Amino acid sequence: MTDRFLHRRRVEFADTDVAGIMHFSNFFRFMEVTEHAFYRSLGFSVHPFRRTGEPGPEPAVGWPRVHASADFRQPLHFEEEIEIELLVEEIRSKTIGYFFRFWKHPDREPDRREIAAVGRFTVVAVSMDPESGRMKAVAVPEEIRAVIQEAPEGSIPAAGS
Amino acid sequence: MTDRFLHRRRVEFADTDVAGIMHFSNFFRFMEVTEHAFYRSLGFSVHPFRRTGEPGPEPAVGWPRVHASADFRQPLHFEEEIEIELLVEEIRSKTIGYFFRFWKHPDREPDRREIAAVGRFTVVAVSMDPESGRMKAVAVPEEIRAVIQEAPEGSIPAAGS
Amino acid sequence: MTDRFLHRRRVEFADTDVAGIMHFSNFFRFMEVTEHAFYRSLGFSVHPFRRTGEPGPEPAVGWPRVHASADFRQPLHFEEEIEIELLVEEIRSKTIGYFFRFWKHPDREPDRREIAAVGRFTVVAVSMDPESGRMKAVAVPEEIRAVIQEAPEGSIPAAGS
Amino acid sequence: MTDRFLHRRRVEFADTDVAGIMHFSNFFRFMEVTEHAFYRSLGFSVHPFRRTGEPGPEPAVGWPRVHASADFRQPLHFEEEIEIELLVEEIRSKTIGYFFRFWKHPDREPDRREIAAVGRFTVVAVSMDPESGRMKAVAVPEEIRAVIQEAPEGSIPAAGS
Repeated sequence: MTDRFLHRRRVEFADTDVAGIMHFSNFFRFMEVTEHAFYRSLGFSVHPFRRTGEPGPEPAVGWPRVHASADFRQPLHFEEEIEIELLVEEIRSKTIGYFFRFWKHPDREPDRREIAAVGRFTVVAVSMDPESGRMKAVAVPEEIRAVIQEAPEGSIPAAGS
Repeated sequence: MTDRFLHRRRVEFADTDVAGIMHFSNFFRFMEVTEHAFYRSLGFSVHPFRRTGEPGPEPAVGWPRVHASADFRQPLHFEEEIEIELLVEEIRSKTIGYFFRFWKHPDREPDRREIAAVGRFTVVAVSMDPESGRMKAVAVPEEIRAVIQEAPEGSIPAAGS
Repeated sequence: MTDRFLHRRRVEFADTDVAGIMHFSNFFRFMEVTEHAFYRSLGFSVHPFRRTGEPGPEPAVGWPRVHASADFRQPLHFEEEIEIELLVEEIRSKTIGYFFRFWKHPDREPDRREIAAVGRFTVVAVSMDPESGRMKAVAVPEEIRAVIQEAPEGSIPAAGS
Repeated sequence: MTDRFLHRRRVEFADTDVAGIMHFSNFFRFMEVTEHAFYRSLGFSVHPFRRTGEPGPEPAVGWPRVHASADFRQPLHFEEEIEIELLVEEIRSKTIGYFFRFWKHPDREPDRREIAAVGRFTVVAVSMDPESGRMKAVAVPEEIRAVIQEAPEGSIPAAGS
């Protein structure tokens, strides 16, 4: 049972902006990259629903987000390597809530690292409805429930705090 | 005194993803584009602080965001034209809060339009500290306070609601 | 019969990088945006082939690029407004070649404007093969041939020159 | 003396577009990421010239590109892992030419791998002119000349072929 995942990433030239730091929108892209790497680490993939008629493992589930937020505390710079920490905040019937921390200086001692940003996603399990050809929310698959769990109380600060 | 601004935008091919819809990170880029167009509409620009030593109008103020969030209700598709509505949610000593709505079908009658997403920014006024060469938070310039005001009570839903 | 199209665009914050100028990859995005606006100006859309089974106008044609290039002469800066000029360079059986110029200061007198960059695309007409479910190259549709033509000799510099 | 470098990369969700494949502009971003990883592998960094007055190793050299091109042969899909091969094509007084191949299935036997795309950059060495505050072309630093060399004749196809 997993409630946490770590992903390393380096800030690239195209991620930066004229203010000399990583553009804030890329924090959201990095959060998604971490979420997808988390699924891969569990043996799952994200179904992009890009084409009907493709054979595939069932249930084919995609994870669009219905909520995304971030609080920015310190800038990230070009070529800086960071560690993105994902925590499973809440598992509900059709949605999962994730919490993220962006750690600067990931190779320093834990108490000397600094948080550049924190963020949250709420993602919803969807599958393609063959009749309407549209995506509809479905239950979080049992295979996923069987391997993830919510992070322990106290490990994630309350939203808005 | 202004508390609201509208900006039109068309979803481009590079804005979309394999799920067939606009990638969620681009909602944040569109919110920033709208915010910057709002400043231009007031006669101001955003100082990117890209180089010291440049002559410029004082006070040169940049607006990095310390918070960004969005709730996604309906997807946006390639070539779809939308209207992004900005509302001034809160003016504080050093920060401004903005609220955004993404309107689908902007040319329909108001009661037949639909909201694709809502979002929020908290931006902080900064200027370059000549001694440290770093950005520091400063008071929202008087020139800006003189031309913007908070949107009336009730025009913006409470956060988290 | 059209051989030329103009599109205005403003450089956005997210388009820039830490060097203080527009990231070179965005010149390519702007070229594609101009190409797509050109199709719309002719009454056509770009079919994204995102879903089978959708009813649509025939023939549904997409335009992936098989070649893209650009030469960069002058940087573009945040909030700078430019004009992108598209010229039809070559119409072949299944492909179209486009040439682009990025004009700085688009509101100046023609002889006082400056070129920031030039670029080229070769795009291929494709449609979905219903049997294989894959895209295959097809003839440039007659409806498009009927309304576009190659720019006159001498209006476009030779490639590599 | 090095004339070749390999970089692995996975296609991310935000790299794709509604056509179900990686957006062509991201091939250019991946080429730049590979170029920058190549410099790091040699012990150098790319100076972003984001602020004057910063102490730094001399000579501080940036590498903007004056030319970029790519030919696209096969699409790349979400979550696909590829290998990007960089070859030093030409070293001149102030510029370096790079050639790139995008290899699909990088873990297959060499003769069973496939090329998704090839590309080229011409980058120019620049440093900040302290008097004008603008970037100017400079000689390729000796420290770099000392560690790189052109790839052998025949290892790179002729441009336009």
